[in-house]
Amino acid sequence: MSSRRGFIKQGSILGLAGLVPPVVNAFASTNKKDMQQEKSKWADGSRLVVSISMQFEAGGQPDNAESPFPQNMQPGYIDLPGATWFEYGYKEGIPRMLDNWDKFGVKVTSHMVGSAVLKNPALAKEIVQRGHEAAAHGMNWSTQYTMSYAEEKQFIKEGADAIEKITGTKPVGYNANWLRRGVNTLKILQELGFIYHIDDLSRDEPFIIQVNNADFAVVPYTLRNNDILLIEGKNFSADQFVHQVKMEFDQLYVESATKRRQMSISLHDRIGGTPQMVKAMSELLTYIQQHKGVAFKRKDEIARMALADKTSIRE
Amino acid sequence: MSSRRGFIKQGSILGLAGLVPPVVNAFASTNKKDMQQEKSKWADGSRLVVSISMQFEAGGQPDNAESPFPQNMQPGYIDLPGATWFEYGYKEGIPRMLDNWDKFGVKVTSHMVGSAVLKNPALAKEIVQRGHEAAAHGMNWSTQYTMSYAEEKQFIKEGADAIEKITGTKPVGYNANWLRRGVNTLKILQELGFIYHIDDLSRDEPFIIQVNNADFAVVPYTLRNNDILLIEGKNFSADQFVHQVKMEFDQLYVESATKRRQMSISLHDRIGGTPQMVKAMSELLTYIQQHKGVAFKRKDEIARMALADKTSIRE
Amino acid sequence: MSSRRGFIKQGSILGLAGLVPPVVNAFASTNKKDMQQEKSKWADGSRLVVSISMQFEAGGQPDNAESPFPQNMQPGYIDLPGATWFEYGYKEGIPRMLDNWDKFGVKVTSHMVGSAVLKNPALAKEIVQRGHEAAAHGMNWSTQYTMSYAEEKQFIKEGADAIEKITGTKPVGYNANWLRRGVNTLKILQELGFIYHIDDLSRDEPFIIQVNNADFAVVPYTLRNNDILLIEGKNFSADQFVHQVKMEFDQLYVESATKRRQMSISLHDRIGGTPQMVKAMSELLTYIQQHKGVAFKRKDEIARMALADKTSIRE
Amino acid sequence: MSSRRGFIKQGSILGLAGLVPPVVNAFASTNKKDMQQEKSKWADGSRLVVSISMQFEAGGQPDNAESPFPQNMQPGYIDLPGATWFEYGYKEGIPRMLDNWDKFGVKVTSHMVGSAVLKNPALAKEIVQRGHEAAAHGMNWSTQYTMSYAEEKQFIKEGADAIEKITGTKPVGYNANWLRRGVNTLKILQELGFIYHIDDLSRDEPFIIQVNNADFAVVPYTLRNNDILLIEGKNFSADQFVHQVKMEFDQLYVESATKRRQMSISLHDRIGGTPQMVKAMSELLTYIQQHKGVAFKRKDEIARMALADKTSIRE
Repeated sequence: MSSRRGFIKQGSILGLAGLVPPVVNAFASTNKKDMQQEKSKWADGSRLVVSISMQFEAGGQPDNAESPFPQNMQPGYIDLPGATWFEYGYKEGIPRMLDNWDKFGVKVTSHMVGSAVLKNPALAKEIVQRGHEAAAHGMNWSTQYTMSYAEEKQFIKEGADAIEKITGTKPVGYNANWLRRGVNTLKILQELGFIYHIDDLSRDEPFIIQVNNADFAVVPYTLRNNDILLIEGKNFSADQFVHQVKMEFDQLYVESATKRRQMSISLHDRIGGTPQMVKAMSELLTYIQQHKGVAFKRKDEIARMALADKTSIRE
Repeated sequence: MSSRRGFIKQGSILGLAGLVPPVVNAFASTNKKDMQQEKSKWADGSRLVVSISMQFEAGGQPDNAESPFPQNMQPGYIDLPGATWFEYGYKEGIPRMLDNWDKFGVKVTSHMVGSAVLKNPALAKEIVQRGHEAAAHGMNWSTQYTMSYAEEKQFIKEGADAIEKITGTKPVGYNANWLRRGVNTLKILQELGFIYHIDDLSRDEPFIIQVNNADFAVVPYTLRNNDILLIEGKNFSADQFVHQVKMEFDQLYVESATKRRQMSISLHDRIGGTPQMVKAMSELLTYIQQHKGVAFKRKDEIARMALADKTSIRE
Repeated sequence: MSSRRGFIKQGSILGLAGLVPPVVNAFASTNKKDMQQEKSKWADGSRLVVSISMQFEAGGQPDNAESPFPQNMQPGYIDLPGATWFEYGYKEGIPRMLDNWDKFGVKVTSHMVGSAVLKNPALAKEIVQRGHEAAAHGMNWSTQYTMSYAEEKQFIKEGADAIEKITGTKPVGYNANWLRRGVNTLKILQELGFIYHIDDLSRDEPFIIQVNNADFAVVPYTLRNNDILLIEGKNFSADQFVHQVKMEFDQLYVESATKRRQMSISLHDRIGGTPQMVKAMSELLTYIQQHKGVAFKRKDEIARMALADKTSIRE
Repeated sequence: MSSRRGFIKQGSILGLAGLVPPVVNAFASTNKKDMQQEKSKWADGSRLVVSISMQFEAGGQPDNAESPFPQNMQPGYIDLPGATWFEYGYKEGIPRMLDNWDKFGVKVTSHMVGSAVLKNPALAKEIVQRGHEAAAHGMNWSTQYTMSYAEEKQFIKEGADAIEKITGTKPVGYNANWLRRGVNTLKILQELGFIYHIDDLSRDEPFIIQVNNADFAVVPYTLRNNDILLIEGKNFSADQFVHQVKMEFDQLYVESATKRRQMSISLHDRIGGTPQMVKAMSELLTYIQQHKGVAFKRKDEIARMALADKTSIRE
């Protein structure tokens, strides 16, 4: 029972009696014994778990895919410089991020588009060889929620097979294009042997749902700490990214003293892999690693911990 | 008479005589006796009143309501990840903000959408039990200004009844969807026993208007310190929110030395309730509470003070 | 002859001879005698002239004029909260700015829309009585560049007459709606006795043009230091406004050591008059006033200096 | 062989053996001898090469070209204030930047639109006389990728001829309008004697491609450090530009210890030439010049170094 839920019960009585005290410090209100019991909400003793995504998509995009260039190409022509913006993702972006993860000793989850993996197999393989998780992200950039059951199952399977063939590991986690899963997606994932998906923003910790009458983990994703939304969507500068993600960490770190908390950060090859964004992540990692009890984990590790933990939230 | 109005009268004479001095310090120009009389413009001795809104809307939104996701869903499909963005509001957002208000000893006004209250009754009840004001915000997210008189009256009453049924308190304040009241709204509110509304941006202090030949309070709202406008509309980062609201406070605090001033800050469950925004509010509250004479008040308290105060501006 | 033009002549010879030195400091390259001659480019000895605009438009806007609210009103309805956003301009914005100008001893130019003046005559009068310039800004918010000669002449005259009737001063400066003058505007202004207009962004100093075979001053305006463009158009936070305008000042202050330079800042009643923006201007004015030789001037003063100065740029 | 490629080979073996160490510092993993060999990747001993573009386009734009003004001109009218925004580029912008480059001893590449050169020949000439590179940028602002081979060849040649006629130098570098070259562009450039183009974002260093069976250099351009994208497209404030470009430099400077790295910064007459942006560049140049081994180079110098260097990446 979380301290907030405990408060509701207690507060109900006080509130009905008109006795709600004017100042209640949520952290002070728990007695010492509870504090100790709640010291770590993670089975492995971690205080706060941070999970980084490194989406591998470039090379698999359709012609004239959306980029920072004006979206006004005349029909029948290819946006040649736009294509080089995507090339940057595998030529500079992923390699630079890989070096940076090593520098900080961090393992990440790479959701890989199948066609991108086939286009740059050596790089996909290197990601896995350097200790990161290869998770699935569809065969290409198609809209997934409009597919029929059969079509979608093939689409997911093809992408996962490409990853397994190239990297030697079978993906167990999934991320739909723009997070937009359809009504059949989770069933299909369960059938194909996946153990978790990330297309959910509802909580700051993993939770368990029932899919096909069996446990399935949800490892929440983020838009708030997501380079594609912040840098390309909201036009943040790299320093704004640092400020905002640091504030997110500060609050979650405080909360993690008494509650199971997970923080997500998301980066894409051609965006998070620029020098300015890798500098941003270096600043953030330096800052975060100064705090005790923070564990960087791949999402497959988080999903497995959540599935094994009887105290996980179940919906 | 405000010091500015006093100045106009004085200035007119000087101005016509060509005697306007080159530098006039508005604060220096009032003599000591006036300063003392004007020391506090609030009946209860507060120097500056700060009012925080915590809108409770998530869960009551229509399918595919606007979210940070691209607004390009194909017809006939539900935006599943978009829905989880709203779920965050009641699963993480409101609970986190409630803990934070307690930490700082602050009571806020929660404008509650009726259908959101019915969806999450325990949370609505908890808000009230922890000392915050339950104010009305319509039965759902419908556009209100196009409704007929009868339709609108039912819409407002239904929402207020839901709040009363669940929380045990009858709301006395109102906020229309996107502030967009219609020509009948105020009459209906007066008929239904409301004492104030907030859908007005014209002043930095409450004022009294005549509705159905009786006093009705206007407790001004804000767009300048409003998370939905700044974070989702203007794409501010959380640190920009801090900087801007701090600057707003600094100026109003100076003015409050000689004039009745109110500052509004507005937060929504799924936006103001994120870790980064609660961190932002923690920084702001820490800063504001270092200043003498600042009182955090619920809007019902402000409305009652304004209605009781003969010196309130009347329009 | 400006030092840059001097450089061109000198550089041509060196350049053709292949002798362009690798580092040329523009400020070091002028000999001492030139430096002294060029020390002040302003006739009155000022080093840098800063001109602030305080546009007085609110109250004169058409129904449902563009505001921070979503521009999606259904036809046949009035945007009631949108109207209160504009009311803020005369109820809080202009009064607050007036107090601030006095606090810093600064006189500004107020381009006034005729209908706004008629709506709030006491405030228009107060602006003038407190020492500021009343300049013209059309009779209302109509698009001016599509008007016929006769129509436009009446439109400009009506607005100017309203200002003269209410404030007792005849405006000599003009600003078209969104700066968008038409092909006849300048001729009409010259005919009506105006001496300058501001609808030009081409230079950082005033200059003289020929209109109807007579001198007419152009006192350049700004988009870079303009609240409507930065705060409402570009979604800057108030602190960004401070940073950017400070950087503008820093560079112009350096240049003003050897060249005639003018800096413009533009504020609108309902935008520049908010607490956060008045705080922003307080920070800027405090910073600027720490620099020697900076003169704050009304645009009519600048126009008259430029017209009287034989060394003014003439186009 | 770059250290990353070296790592792949080594990592493959370790990875397959399940021996990937948990923390690998990319910089620590190279042995001392390699470090010395790789100390400088640039033939001339530079550690990091920074290349600045100063696009000269204003004066050559079509009527009603896109500007910060609302893009809502009624048909048949000229946007007069919009035109003055462009005039600023040659009246204030380029002259101010030229003085600033001299102050810091920096030579830049100016991609010049042919019609802009013909409009302001003295300024184009001055740019070259002060030591900067005149590169080509088409005859006017036309969309280039839709032209036929013959049409495009004439378009490029005309622009280059204008530059040569006015400045006395034949351009060897090319930049297409909005970087959008067509399928024939590179062939035409090779035929006309150009040695490099910049319309590619795929790498942080120059590389060599084969065009018409001969070497042709690609000197990558930037959107990340580009005033038109950041200031006008993303609505950055000038201080955000400083922060972001500084972060870009920091990361590239670190990488340049072991790898050939080039940093690009791009400025346009009417945007990068404002006081606030020249102040921004002054701050950046001051910061960058405090670092050892950084060389500012014109793009023709970079292209020639890359073409002469056998170790250049060849695609």
